[in-house]
Amino acid sequence: MNPIRLALVGLGKIARDQHLPAIAATEGIDLVAVASRNARLDGVAHFATLADLLASGEAIDAVALCTPPQGRHDLAAQALMAGKHVLLEKPPGATVSELGPLVAAAQASGRTLFATWHSRFAPAVEPARAFLAEVAPRGVRVTWKEDVRVWHPGQRWIWEPGGLGVFDPAINALSILTAILPRPVFVTGAELSFPSNCAAPIAATVAFADADGLKVQADLDFLQTGPQSWDIEVDTDRGTLLLAKGGAELSLDGQVLSAQPEAEYRNIYRRFVELVQTGGSDVDLAPLQLVADAFLLGRRLDVAPFHD
Amino acid sequence: MNPIRLALVGLGKIARDQHLPAIAATEGIDLVAVASRNARLDGVAHFATLADLLASGEAIDAVALCTPPQGRHDLAAQALMAGKHVLLEKPPGATVSELGPLVAAAQASGRTLFATWHSRFAPAVEPARAFLAEVAPRGVRVTWKEDVRVWHPGQRWIWEPGGLGVFDPAINALSILTAILPRPVFVTGAELSFPSNCAAPIAATVAFADADGLKVQADLDFLQTGPQSWDIEVDTDRGTLLLAKGGAELSLDGQVLSAQPEAEYRNIYRRFVELVQTGGSDVDLAPLQLVADAFLLGRRLDVAPFHD
Repeated sequence: MNPIRLALVGLGKIARDQHLPAIAATEGIDLVAVASRNARLDGVAHFATLADLLASGEAIDAVALCTPPQGRHDLAAQALMAGKHVLLEKPPGATVSELGPLVAAAQASGRTLFATWHSRFAPAVEPARAFLAEVAPRGVRVTWKEDVRVWHPGQRWIWEPGGLGVFDPAINALSILTAILPRPVFVTGAELSFPSNCAAPIAATVAFADADGLKVQADLDFLQTGPQSWDIEVDTDRGTLLLAKGGAELSLDGQVLSAQPEAEYRNIYRRFVELVQTGGSDVDLAPLQLVADAFLLGRRLDVAPFHD
Repeated sequence: MNPIRLALVGLGKIARDQHLPAIAATEGIDLVAVASRNARLDGVAHFATLADLLASGEAIDAVALCTPPQGRHDLAAQALMAGKHVLLEKPPGATVSELGPLVAAAQASGRTLFATWHSRFAPAVEPARAFLAEVAPRGVRVTWKEDVRVWHPGQRWIWEPGGLGVFDPAINALSILTAILPRPVFVTGAELSFPSNCAAPIAATVAFADADGLKVQADLDFLQTGPQSWDIEVDTDRGTLLLAKGGAELSLDGQVLSAQPEAEYRNIYRRFVELVQTGGSDVDLAPLQLVADAFLLGRRLDVAPFHD
C-alpha cells in the first residue's frame, strides 16, 4: 500500500512540537503539504488555506487539522467533501452536535474520521484501565493544574467562545477518565470561574458520578505556577492508584507500576494509518460531552480579568 | 391487557394543568398514586417521596416524573431499578450524559423510558415536517418570547444550575425544529444574557446551521410582555411557512394550512401506553444537546438582576 499523502492544516505550536516529529517517525504516512496563513515548512508544498490546497489539485489523501477548535468543523467538512481522510486534534470541534454531520459524511464517503485524544495514548493509561477493570474504584480525584502562560502563550483563541479555557487541558483528563473507568460518568455539578474579560473559564471544579454511585471530583486551574499537576488518583480496595504526569506514570500507594517513555502522537499516527488502511473511523465524543454538560449545569463565578 | 398503573411524581403546575387531564382521557393507563412533598390528590394514594412509594409495596407499573429537571436523573434511576417504566417531562435531565446510564438501565431491564417533548405533539408539527420534506427550507427564524412571570410564577428552580432559564421554554422550539427540518442542525454561535443574580440565561440569540448550509436564527426572550411569540418561520421556494402558537397553527404566506385543536399531552400518554405495550423506549436527546452546545459555545452577557 502506498503511503498516505498527508497535509497539515495549521502549523502552530502543537503541529511543530508533536505532529511533525510523529509523522516523520511513522511508517505509511508522508507529509506532502502544509496549509497555513503565516507559517511555511522547507521542502513541503505550501498553501495559505485548505480551500487553496484542495483547489490546487495537489495530490493528498488525508488532512490533519491542527488549527483552533472553533473552525475545525468547516475545515473537516471541506476535506471530507473533497474525499480526504481527516484527523482532528482535540477537542474535535467547538460543539458536540457539529460532529454528527461529519461522522455521517465520513460514513457516506467511506473515508476515515479520527477524533484524536492524545492523552489516551499516554503509556500508563492502558495499565490503569486494566487495573480498574479488576479492582473497583471507590472514589476518584482529578487534579489538573497548569500555567496557561507557559503552555499556551498568547493563544487568545483559548479564551474565545469555543476555546474551552481551562477545559482545553482538562479535556485531556476527561479523555483518560472516560477510558479507564469501568462505567460512563456524568456531570452532577460544576463551578466555573470566568475572568471578566474572557468567554471561557480559567478555573473549575466539576463533580461526576456513575450509575453505581462512584464519585469523581475534578479540580482544574489554569493559573498554577510552580509544580504542575496532571494527576488522577483512584481509591481502591488495593490502595490508592495514582495516574500521574498526564498519564505517563502509574503507581499504587507510591510503588511504581508503569513508567514507559511517552509516545502519544506516534501512537496517534500509527492508529490513523491503521484506520485508513482498514476503512474505519474513531469518533468518541464523551470527553467533549462532559465539558458541554459542565457548561450547561455549571454555576458561574466572576473572577479577575486575565492578561497574558 | 390490564391498564398501566401510574404514579405521578411531582404535583406542580404542569402535572395539574396537563398530566392529570391527559391521563384521565387516555385508555390503558390509570393514575393510582402520587408522590409529592406538599400536594395531595383526593382519592389517590399519597406518598411524600418516590422512595417512600417504592418502599410501600403500592402496586404500580410506571412513573411520570413532573418534578424540576435537576433531580430527574436520580428519580428515574430509582424507578428503573425498581422495575418501573418511566415517563420524563422535558427536559429529560439536567445534562445530556446522565441519560446514557438510564437508557442502558431501561434496555437491560426491558422497561420503557420515554423522554417526552410535548411540543412535538402539537397538531401542526407533522404537517410542517411533511411540507419541508417536499419543499427545501432556505432559511429559518425562531422567535420564542414569553413572560416568565406569567408562565413560571415563583419557579425559582428555573434560575438555578440545570434549570435552563429561557431555554426551558425554548427547548420546546428546538424539539420542534429538530423534528421538522430535513437534516440535523448544530450550534454555530450564541449570546446568552445572564441576570447577575441567576445561574441561567433570561434571553439568548442562537445561530444554527446544517450540513447543507441552511441557517437558523433563534431569538429567545423570557421578559416578553404583551403579545407572546412561539413562532418558527421558514423561507421556502413556495413562500414563507409559519408554524405559530407553539406548533398549533401552520400557514403559508398567511394562508392557513393546518389549525387543529391542541392535544399534546393526550398524545404523549397515548404514545407512552403504546411504548409500554410494545416494550419500546423513545429517548431523543437532540434538543437538550443543542442547549448544552449553546451553553458551551455561547458568549455570556451580564444583564440586570431578575426578581419575580
